[in-house]
Amino acid sequence: MARVSQEHLDARRRQILEGAARCFARNGFHGTSMQDVLKEAGLSAGAVYRYFPGKEDIIAAITEETFATIRGAFEEAARVSPPPTPDVLLSRMLARVLGEQLYGLERRTFAALAVQLWSETLRDARLAAQLDEGYATMRGVWAELVGAYRSAGILSGDVVADHVARTMIATAQGFIVQEALFGDVRPDVPENGLRGLMSMGPQKAS
Amino acid sequence: MARVSQEHLDARRRQILEGAARCFARNGFHGTSMQDVLKEAGLSAGAVYRYFPGKEDIIAAITEETFATIRGAFEEAARVSPPPTPDVLLSRMLARVLGEQLYGLERRTFAALAVQLWSETLRDARLAAQLDEGYATMRGVWAELVGAYRSAGILSGDVVADHVARTMIATAQGFIVQEALFGDVRPDVPENGLRGLMSMGPQKAS
Repeated sequence: MARVSQEHLDARRRQILEGAARCFARNGFHGTSMQDVLKEAGLSAGAVYRYFPGKEDIIAAITEETFATIRGAFEEAARVSPPPTPDVLLSRMLARVLGEQLYGLERRTFAALAVQLWSETLRDARLAAQLDEGYATMRGVWAELVGAYRSAGILSGDVVADHVARTMIATAQGFIVQEALFGDVRPDVPENGLRGLMSMGPQKAS
Repeated sequence: MARVSQEHLDARRRQILEGAARCFARNGFHGTSMQDVLKEAGLSAGAVYRYFPGKEDIIAAITEETFATIRGAFEEAARVSPPPTPDVLLSRMLARVLGEQLYGLERRTFAALAVQLWSETLRDARLAAQLDEGYATMRGVWAELVGAYRSAGILSGDVVADHVARTMIATAQGFIVQEALFGDVRPDVPENGLRGLMSMGPQKAS
């Protein structure tokens, strides 16, 4: 029997994950069987089970990569120095996450996968632990960024950095929900919207 | 056979919806059978089918009420005159939605139900139509509110009202996701967070 190259193994693993991601985005984790994954990936049971003993293992791999993608985009957006203001930062981050084409998925399908994943997390302790860890990291990175805003004198001094970080994360999460549900989140929506909110500071009320 | 009062009918219907909502929040719509609903509500099949011919009908009823609750809280928060700034408005709205105890659900469980509902909407055309309609209404109400901010001179004139409205809605959606996943969204988080973002207008950067 011929030896199989690492490239071949990686490509085959990729093929399985891409097929599974399409199924999950469409029908949820719960609504997808291993049979569905085999069919979507166009592979035999033997070929798939060699890489992933069960559906749970595919879900764990996809969860890890999906969170890593979202987290990577957050961290990359936050690493720019000096950091862009939240309107620019968040729209850039969302454009990157949604445009990444992880598993070859289009924007809206990837957003749908993220929503399915949040939903599945509610009933799966392993996923919940993965999410907790990823979220804690993100909060930390964004809270540092908020600290940078404060140092630069562009953020009111009395606001809890973690609350601003969580609000920026919530805005991104909400736009992922909107992209999944309606498929119409273009970068100018969060950018203009946040710019509008940012113009509403108390100093303008007088 | 004794006549059954309207109160009895209503209470029975409520009992079914509450049992089903608990199941859905826990296991998703897809992961819940009519048997699960019967068991959770403590009722016989005959008693349940009299009110709802199938699971789809229970889902439709819960979807309608859940959206109505979220929409009602949005609209109520926006109706106050003069409208409070977004930080106060959004935290008030979230406190009301999450504290409503619809179907007797606690904050986090209700948030989980909303996430399950978004997730299910991705594969159910009837739910998607309900959601589209509710979302369009909300966007309209919030865009009007943004117009009121503009008239009051507290919002920069060149920003598209719909984009600000969608960003406020996204923030609320994201906090519902965070409450479902982590159960720790207290009203001061969105309030402080938005107040921080609102303090970051371009006039502060100079």
